[in-house]
Amino acid sequence: MVSDSEAVSADSNSVDGDQADQPRRISILGATGSIGTSTLAVLDQHPGAFEVEAVTAFGNAESLARIAKHTRARIAVIADRRGHGSLVQALSGTGIEAASGEDAIIEAAGRPVDTVVAGIVGSAGLSPTLAAIRSGSNVALANKECLVCAGSVFVAEARVAGVTILPMDSEHNAVFQALGGNAIEDVDKIVLTASGGPFRDWTREAMASARPDDALKHPSWSMGPKITIDSATLMNKGLELIEAHHLFAVSGDKLDVVVHPQSIVHSMVSYRDGTTIAVLGEPDMRLPISHCLWWPDRGENMGLRLDLTKAGRLTFLKPDTNKFPALRLAREALEAGGWATNILNAANEVAVAAFLAGNVGFLEIARIAEDTIEVARSAGLDRSPSTVADALSLDRESRRIAKERVAGIDTRTTHH
Amino acid sequence: MVSDSEAVSADSNSVDGDQADQPRRISILGATGSIGTSTLAVLDQHPGAFEVEAVTAFGNAESLARIAKHTRARIAVIADRRGHGSLVQALSGTGIEAASGEDAIIEAAGRPVDTVVAGIVGSAGLSPTLAAIRSGSNVALANKECLVCAGSVFVAEARVAGVTILPMDSEHNAVFQALGGNAIEDVDKIVLTASGGPFRDWTREAMASARPDDALKHPSWSMGPKITIDSATLMNKGLELIEAHHLFAVSGDKLDVVVHPQSIVHSMVSYRDGTTIAVLGEPDMRLPISHCLWWPDRGENMGLRLDLTKAGRLTFLKPDTNKFPALRLAREALEAGGWATNILNAANEVAVAAFLAGNVGFLEIARIAEDTIEVARSAGLDRSPSTVADALSLDRESRRIAKERVAGIDTRTTHH
Repeated sequence: MVSDSEAVSADSNSVDGDQADQPRRISILGATGSIGTSTLAVLDQHPGAFEVEAVTAFGNAESLARIAKHTRARIAVIADRRGHGSLVQALSGTGIEAASGEDAIIEAAGRPVDTVVAGIVGSAGLSPTLAAIRSGSNVALANKECLVCAGSVFVAEARVAGVTILPMDSEHNAVFQALGGNAIEDVDKIVLTASGGPFRDWTREAMASARPDDALKHPSWSMGPKITIDSATLMNKGLELIEAHHLFAVSGDKLDVVVHPQSIVHSMVSYRDGTTIAVLGEPDMRLPISHCLWWPDRGENMGLRLDLTKAGRLTFLKPDTNKFPALRLAREALEAGGWATNILNAANEVAVAAFLAGNVGFLEIARIAEDTIEVARSAGLDRSPSTVADALSLDRESRRIAKERVAGIDTRTTHH
Repeated sequence: MVSDSEAVSADSNSVDGDQADQPRRISILGATGSIGTSTLAVLDQHPGAFEVEAVTAFGNAESLARIAKHTRARIAVIADRRGHGSLVQALSGTGIEAASGEDAIIEAAGRPVDTVVAGIVGSAGLSPTLAAIRSGSNVALANKECLVCAGSVFVAEARVAGVTILPMDSEHNAVFQALGGNAIEDVDKIVLTASGGPFRDWTREAMASARPDDALKHPSWSMGPKITIDSATLMNKGLELIEAHHLFAVSGDKLDVVVHPQSIVHSMVSYRDGTTIAVLGEPDMRLPISHCLWWPDRGENMGLRLDLTKAGRLTFLKPDTNKFPALRLAREALEAGGWATNILNAANEVAVAAFLAGNVGFLEIARIAEDTIEVARSAGLDRSPSTVADALSLDRESRRIAKERVAGIDTRTTHH
């Protein structure tokens, strides 16, 4: 056993070979966002362990310049050209290159490093992430849209490039770790855990009149408004089912969701022999981020020690798909194909924005998504994208349809 | 990710190479005991997957012959020579070889196979298990004494022979799986779970007058009387700490115990980055046995599906080392060295037998073990065994001392 365990660890280290003691080179796409901020926190706790090639942001030049200086990045790129002047000025004399515009983001993302953190939110993340994959960098993927809108494309590109997609959100990262060296054929179920969101114990009637403020109270994770609403509808978990399908090459019938209010078990894999392997930890994004940055090794202690004797009890419940139709919708979309998951995501985003703006009720979110898929199918949009350009075009078209649905809803009738 | 996961699984399968579809060859030492019986249940659920070379037993010739015929073993060996005639008679005409005596057991254990199930209870298991290791077979280890009485010897022999010791009890098997391909240097804590036994919620005063019947009521596992008493004193968990030290090459300060009354989390490994990997399953010995027999692959479904939404809640408590001094004793023995763990085990066995016979009180068990170690140290027995012969000799000497301690106890004074 001892000899074997040593052999296994030697094996897993050999992936890195003699680089183990050299700093790892990384780039951070979306450095000023939530994932970027947590990534910087992990870097700060491992001084000297990482070298940063590129940092990018959408529009906040000051913040990006500060991050670039702090991490001693080689290049900082801002997507919004209007920030170009401020960025150049803030970086003058530092030796850090400054650039702006979409093409510059893609160029920076394509600079070969060990790992690119793909933290750009939304469909804007597709082309830069693809560039990272094609350059042969491993990708620590936080962007949901790459897999939901164009999963087959990304998985195929990663295979061709021989790179690893390291899932950065806590559930898929947990599954990745719970799979370990096991064969995917031996998997009985991949079980994603869900906190259940703020409406876990609400009735459907109460949910019908829920306001944005109610939905923004997430019980265990601190996140942005869009993802917090997705967590209230469980659409977040539905989209994660779709991501898991692509990441782990399993069909929908091998994917399950359990509600686990404590958010300590981040997800599980059950094997056909009856063994279940679970990955647990504090609900803190630094955990999966550290895993991705250090993989296949592990980072230093960041003060995130799980003490189950303090955590109290862990509970698990079946999700109520009547109350949370988003789970059913996501499964149906997964079954229908890449076109449907693309449309589901786009329509959901439009519907959530409408809910946050007070234009539609909470229960309309799933209905708008479902209707948009139906309308798009009737309009002949049911062909799965085979390129990122296809995916982006379908995404735009779906948003247009979803916005028509939103406009067609008389908000006074939604609170029945 | 998909490409990587396939690479990993191909790697792990390659250990078996082209044998994957051939039956695996195994031998079962202690075939009529509890581990043997569960092993047979696993074999029955995988028809054609295993070929049995040898089955052995201590004294039950009829039962052994039945098992040998059922499994179509090549040889059946009974340790007690008085059973020789019955065994020969029961196997006549079957083509199955029959043999008897300790040397024949050792010869059978040393026949090269893929995996030898080391299910002999007690110190009688040492020499046969050593023979299995030396022959180059992997060993599925259920015998505690190999590691507790002579751990350094067995680990060194396994390293030299290049074989893997696969832990068959549920806790260490869980740790083995939770370690996966991780480096042992990245481990922060190995956390063994304990049901807490029947006296989990008893006061020390109540435990002082506990009778064998009280201690034999185990809350979650169905086991023999000796191990059930060890589970009531938590000595079982103490001995498991010692085994874990040898199996996973970690020092005592990296080993923890948490009480987990539901016995669903079989054990955990916490890594330095804050990630905890736990292995869960129904409390059924077929699970770890199947894992060992199929390793590095996985066996078929045996109807042991864990449904956490039915399991209810999982809870975790710190063990009370004042109430359960066996845990402290085991740690002290681990610190002191192999001589002390050997004596701890021998003295505990004598003390448990005395408790079951009604000759000493429940709380005397740990005291006898502690006193025996002290007396043995004073007598110059504090040198760690470097051979199995040394270990067996120290075991005998320790039992003699422990029996003197038992005889010296006035049973009327133990129930204070």
